[in-house]
Amino acid sequence: MLQRPEHQVAGHEAGSGTPGPLIDGSGHFFKPLNPSDERGAHELAFYTSFFSDPRVPHSIRSSFFPSFGGTRVLPIPDSPDLLLPHLVLENLLHGYSNPCVMDVKIGARTWYPSASEKYYAKCLKKDRDSTSALLGFRISGLQVHHESGRWKPHRDKVRKYTVTDVRQSLRQFISKNPDETPPDCALASSVYGGSNGILAQLLELKSWFEDQTLFHFYSASLLIAYDKGGKAPRLKLIDFAHVMEGEGIIDHNFLGGLCSLIKCVSEILADAETAAGPTDPQVLETTADLEAAAGPAEPKVVVGLTENGIH
Amino acid sequence: MLQRPEHQVAGHEAGSGTPGPLIDGSGHFFKPLNPSDERGAHELAFYTSFFSDPRVPHSIRSSFFPSFGGTRVLPIPDSPDLLLPHLVLENLLHGYSNPCVMDVKIGARTWYPSASEKYYAKCLKKDRDSTSALLGFRISGLQVHHESGRWKPHRDKVRKYTVTDVRQSLRQFISKNPDETPPDCALASSVYGGSNGILAQLLELKSWFEDQTLFHFYSASLLIAYDKGGKAPRLKLIDFAHVMEGEGIIDHNFLGGLCSLIKCVSEILADAETAAGPTDPQVLETTADLEAAAGPAEPKVVVGLTENGIH
Repeated sequence: MLQRPEHQVAGHEAGSGTPGPLIDGSGHFFKPLNPSDERGAHELAFYTSFFSDPRVPHSIRSSFFPSFGGTRVLPIPDSPDLLLPHLVLENLLHGYSNPCVMDVKIGARTWYPSASEKYYAKCLKKDRDSTSALLGFRISGLQVHHESGRWKPHRDKVRKYTVTDVRQSLRQFISKNPDETPPDCALASSVYGGSNGILAQLLELKSWFEDQTLFHFYSASLLIAYDKGGKAPRLKLIDFAHVMEGEGIIDHNFLGGLCSLIKCVSEILADAETAAGPTDPQVLETTADLEAAAGPAEPKVVVGLTENGIH
Repeated sequence: MLQRPEHQVAGHEAGSGTPGPLIDGSGHFFKPLNPSDERGAHELAFYTSFFSDPRVPHSIRSSFFPSFGGTRVLPIPDSPDLLLPHLVLENLLHGYSNPCVMDVKIGARTWYPSASEKYYAKCLKKDRDSTSALLGFRISGLQVHHESGRWKPHRDKVRKYTVTDVRQSLRQFISKNPDETPPDCALASSVYGGSNGILAQLLELKSWFEDQTLFHFYSASLLIAYDKGGKAPRLKLIDFAHVMEGEGIIDHNFLGGLCSLIKCVSEILADAETAAGPTDPQVLETTADLEAAAGPAEPKVVVGLTENGIH
């Protein structure tokens, strides 16, 4: 019944003697809570707090976070005598036959103000060595299913991605020929575009981040996923081992990185649609259209701009 | 004709033998270009590039940047035999009889990716020791003219501002009793609010930063100024000695800090308008008004383990 997730693209995997996440056939994702590692306890505390906080809008919780079902003690597959508590989460890829998945760690900095000097130095080095400091986010892993199989760059290769590589990966991710040059971006409109697409979801999430001062999501990721053919793109926040209390301050680090990702995705979408020529006018394609369409979901400030208004 | 600016609240001032900025009676602000300091040359290069780049919208240039008139060689007041080139800029306080001024350095980090290790370490320490890392901006200086004189906290005091102090300063800045507790926020609506107020201008600037990938404004400041009684608030970007080319990436560091400042200003405006009771519905315009309508600030989140804890 329990098995290793097949489509994990980043994060801890099970090793010999090291417990990793498990999934069942009912849509659950079990993440081990190692008692000797405070990160698990911290992530559990976050889920508990987040799912009971009335200030978090229901739509945000249900749209952008895995559902949470407490904890459960489970045997470890390779060491059935060993029982370990697990977080009971939603398997975000449940129901997808051939999922295309990307893990994007958001924020120019992954260290938090109260971090130890050692942890801080380690994060800072990673942020400067990766695209995080420069671009405001980095890709931690991805896989694309296409007609002739699965394309999944090696973890060590992804770790060395430059800004150019990241831009390219965001194109490969929505291409039917991810391993060719240039990637065709054939699924740009169906995955990134449209009123239920990734860009529209990113903009809705951005609206919440412009306002919320409850949590700071250090080192968290956005999981972007869709099934073969571009069906049902999903955008979810994951990995909350380093979420801190917001203390009345917005999460400007996450928000800045999110805006940078939005800009990159917008550009790909605009390029793809320019290349495709005129399209159905009902398809909402531009950032401005989508922001307008987000409507009530966005607690937009309606201050009249001066006559020098932005266009 | 040339004189020292009376209302400078931050940045380099003239010392004995050290040249500082000068103003004339015609609205010019002359900033010395020290030939031995590359920052001056860098700032000149920025102004030259920025004012000739057709990709910068005219409205952005004219609304949010000092006008630029090239360079001029001027004698130094205390050493009239010494001639030094100066940047010819707009005196942003020209025409104000009793200016209230605040200098806000935007961005959680002031170091840029290509900085030397020494400069990087120096900036990082300042960012962590000040409110920059935590809040996404810091106040570098301010002065408020009120009925009985001028209130201007000492530079050493401002340098030690905590997040609470920064929030308080943003209230003192638009109060008629800045040195009393609590400050009355009497000018909140006329300075921060309204369609030509600071919040509306910040939002217009934010729209540009969500899109522009031309420049990264490391260590730049927003100068917020208004004249006695709240007339004609101005918002201008200043200090461009560390502007870098954007290379196709948005300035997520500046944008994040800007959004944090917007949130703080929105909250003050909402509080002030709630306190003032029902007002002209046209004035109720901000995101924060919605929050105020939903009730007073709620208690702090307590992240802690619950009964779902590890067993």
